[in-house]
Amino acid sequence: MAQKLGVTVRTNAGPGVLHQLTGVIAQQGGDITSVEIGGEGAAEPRIYFEIDLPAESDLLVEALRALPVVRQVELVQTLQLIYGKRVIIMGGGAQVGQVAIGAISEADRHNIRGERISVDTIPLVGEQALADAVRAVARLPRASVLVLAGAIMGGDIERAVREVRAQGLLVVSLNMAGSAPEAADLIVTDPVQAGVMSVMAIADTASFTLGRLSRRVF
Amino acid sequence: MAQKLGVTVRTNAGPGVLHQLTGVIAQQGGDITSVEIGGEGAAEPRIYFEIDLPAESDLLVEALRALPVVRQVELVQTLQLIYGKRVIIMGGGAQVGQVAIGAISEADRHNIRGERISVDTIPLVGEQALADAVRAVARLPRASVLVLAGAIMGGDIERAVREVRAQGLLVVSLNMAGSAPEAADLIVTDPVQAGVMSVMAIADTASFTLGRLSRRVF
Repeated sequence: MAQKLGVTVRTNAGPGVLHQLTGVIAQQGGDITSVEIGGEGAAEPRIYFEIDLPAESDLLVEALRALPVVRQVELVQTLQLIYGKRVIIMGGGAQVGQVAIGAISEADRHNIRGERISVDTIPLVGEQALADAVRAVARLPRASVLVLAGAIMGGDIERAVREVRAQGLLVVSLNMAGSAPEAADLIVTDPVQAGVMSVMAIADTASFTLGRLSRRVF
Repeated sequence: MAQKLGVTVRTNAGPGVLHQLTGVIAQQGGDITSVEIGGEGAAEPRIYFEIDLPAESDLLVEALRALPVVRQVELVQTLQLIYGKRVIIMGGGAQVGQVAIGAISEADRHNIRGERISVDTIPLVGEQALADAVRAVARLPRASVLVLAGAIMGGDIERAVREVRAQGLLVVSLNMAGSAPEAADLIVTDPVQAGVMSVMAIADTASFTLGRLSRRVF
């Protein structure tokens, strides 16, 4: 079984650097599962990789260090280990705040027992802005569940919800006006409870799963 | 001036794919500023790039499509445009929730005026877990300000705060026990106000900056 490795590489700036680094990682048989580029515009950007590596990490570190563009290589804990699964909450500020309160309290209880669950939010207004943000959740690393927190959502937001659900994302919606709630996996009226249930649904330390519920509107 | 491009590429799975894609992007003179790998373990992973591109985007799209491993290429809005700057809040669940309420309400007011500010949180317990999470903020894309929200933080957390500040991150701390607050840019007693001030400090639509404050403890 391959090990999951976190590696931070400090390099010289410029086009083509990522191509060189990924070449070395591919040579070592590493499968890159995540990349984060930090220090944008800096003279020495830091590039962070999560890699499934069947071989010795020492060999990979040595091979990366041998590249002339590389300044420093460091093994680090993976972001998966540090920030874990992500709950994404979006919609109106008033509702997003209340759902966040529920989700953060519940995540706290699971994280104390050794899990890692993050609660990430964005207050947004407007059908197109929200539909774009819903679709973009599919591009966010470690996103596990999306909560729609507003007073009315429909139209293209509903279509976006169906698209991301088809890609495997769990979607919880507040009970609200518009057609978007009907497209969600679960509809919850109380925002604090919606936050709590969303965390329970993705937590490994909870025995709760949406599949075991006998109804989907609360 | 190079344009900032968002591109989603659906590919076959397997090691070396990223190396091929980045090779094509480098050939076109593109500077990759962000990468997100979605659909981990799927037969057709989606890889999202943000690229500073001096040339025509059509040429890049054509060149990517010409790779045998590539199934689909799509131009999309960048995550910077959709989710924008990130406020990161970490610490105890009770405090994190209250800081989030303030930050989300204030972000709502700025986002309504056309900005994009996200509020991301993780409730965590323990000196080492928190110190690791503070250091890892430097690896999170678009992170602009960190808020320490707890009742006591010190030791290695303080060292981690000094390290990320040296890398250019803004750090706000609640007024609490321990040595960590003293290492922050700003200390705020009321958690809701701490959330509001953190958003104001990074918002383009606010005239507030930390540099204009005559004191750093509130």
